[in-house]
Amino acid sequence: VPTLSGNINLTIPPDSQSGKRLRVKDKGLASKTGIGDLYAVLKIVIPDKTDEESRQLWKTLSEKTKFNPRREWRTA
Amino acid sequence: VPTLSGNINLTIPPDSQSGKRLRVKDKGLASKTGIGDLYAVLKIVIPDKTDEESRQLWKTLSEKTKFNPRREWRTA
Repeated sequence: VPTLSGNINLTIPPDSQSGKRLRVKDKGLASKTGIGDLYAVLKIVIPDKTDEESRQLWKTLSEKTKFNPRREWRTA
Repeated sequence: VPTLSGNINLTIPPDSQSGKRLRVKDKGLASKTGIGDLYAVLKIVIPDKTDEESRQLWKTLSEKTKFNPRREWRTA
């Protein structure tokens, strides 16, 4: 990840969601009171092209996974 | 997808990205000049818990896929 003071490696916790903020201590703006922290915001991107093989893998994943992607919805 | 006039089924085009807007004709607000369109914004969510089997599938996917998730980055 590029920061104000060069690139760093950032370890993403497993099962992180898009939009999650990760605090990176002392990589933010410097001021009189010290150096601030950098907040890295995760953004999940997916491949813009898929071949037949990976499509099949995505399908297997969706079938194996017990997960309701619409859990946050208030449905009538 | 819940709309102002009840639930509808929305077909998501393959390889759609988070944040993509899909226009649903005539499902928006009604006014004197007619009925507006509804825009559905996609939000990709991923499972908050994963078992060993699906983790393995994710791994296979990431290895098979030729895709640079950091393509939008301006790296120094």
